[in-house]
Amino acid sequence: MSIDATTSPTTALDDAALAQLFTQARTANTFSDEPVSDAELTAIWELAKWAPTAANTQPLRVLFVRTEDGKARLVEHMADGNKAKTASAPAVAVLAVDTQFHEHIPTIFPIRPEMKDYFASDEAARTTTAQFNATLQAAYVILAIRARGLFAGPMAGFDAAGIDGEFFEDGRFKTILVVNLGHPGTDPWFDRLPRLTDDDVISWA
Amino acid sequence: MSIDATTSPTTALDDAALAQLFTQARTANTFSDEPVSDAELTAIWELAKWAPTAANTQPLRVLFVRTEDGKARLVEHMADGNKAKTASAPAVAVLAVDTQFHEHIPTIFPIRPEMKDYFASDEAARTTTAQFNATLQAAYVILAIRARGLFAGPMAGFDAAGIDGEFFEDGRFKTILVVNLGHPGTDPWFDRLPRLTDDDVISWA
Repeated sequence: MSIDATTSPTTALDDAALAQLFTQARTANTFSDEPVSDAELTAIWELAKWAPTAANTQPLRVLFVRTEDGKARLVEHMADGNKAKTASAPAVAVLAVDTQFHEHIPTIFPIRPEMKDYFASDEAARTTTAQFNATLQAAYVILAIRARGLFAGPMAGFDAAGIDGEFFEDGRFKTILVVNLGHPGTDPWFDRLPRLTDDDVISWA
Repeated sequence: MSIDATTSPTTALDDAALAQLFTQARTANTFSDEPVSDAELTAIWELAKWAPTAANTQPLRVLFVRTEDGKARLVEHMADGNKAKTASAPAVAVLAVDTQFHEHIPTIFPIRPEMKDYFASDEAARTTTAQFNATLQAAYVILAIRARGLFAGPMAGFDAAGIDGEFFEDGRFKTILVVNLGHPGTDPWFDRLPRLTDDDVISWA
């Protein structure tokens, strides 16, 4: 067995990396003019795609919006409080669920290709699995943006049906989150909001 | 303005860190005897808690199970294919939604404390917000485990109602994911399953 990152003992990331990902990272509300290339956008997905999903289902789909025309079409469907943020971002990731993700199962879960038929016949299981695992993947994308040295601005305020009608005309993809990304602009964030205490969150058994 | 990680230009993490988090990381199915301390478990949450949720709602709750008695109670409710994995893990994180997360809003979102009343009156919005944001936080926990140098084994196969009845008796917390964690044991993983191609996932506008 070769010695590599998957078989060697692993240590914690250093404090600078933990700060960039978690402890000092901030959601950006304004962005500088510094562009983000298509190669940088693809490289975000090249990280996020490796993080785990149930039965390797990988139901998330990613629309990268970075042209002026594309951004104008998207901003139209953002909540009023988010329009300026999205307009200022050099690129925006529209994250959507593929409601027909199970069609890929013979390729991506070849050890149990029959799960395609299970999900085809059980709409409730299909919907729940798609939504849950695409949401996990949306979080992986946020942290992958930070890992690549960029700043993310995830937003829940948008007209999902409007975005879907604008960009996903056949009805197969359903938008779950919109994430502005780039480099921070002027006054990019407010003071940090408080976190719950450990006693509020953690219990032991 | 002080120069720190939140205001300095940021660069990508190095390849070793990206490998540990994403590109070489693997889901562990077996675990060694090496213990994981309560301090290490708390330190996982000390990272994950900083990643973003909508309106800072933070609806995830974490039960760390690491006693023999706790694990025996938990294993009972895991799917047959997962019982041995959970039994071999030195610690297990049971990740749950706090269905009454909105009670904390005056503390954690003091800029709009009235959102507590909005969520109190709109059960559909409350449920959707809780499920979506707790799922984002579950993914943050998986990557925080890896960032701390440990290995995660997330599992979707369990009797959620059984776990809730066993550990969350008042009905307020609802389990969404169970994550074994520790150091890899013997033959900890199979060959990596294929990922979708970029053309399957990414589109551009």
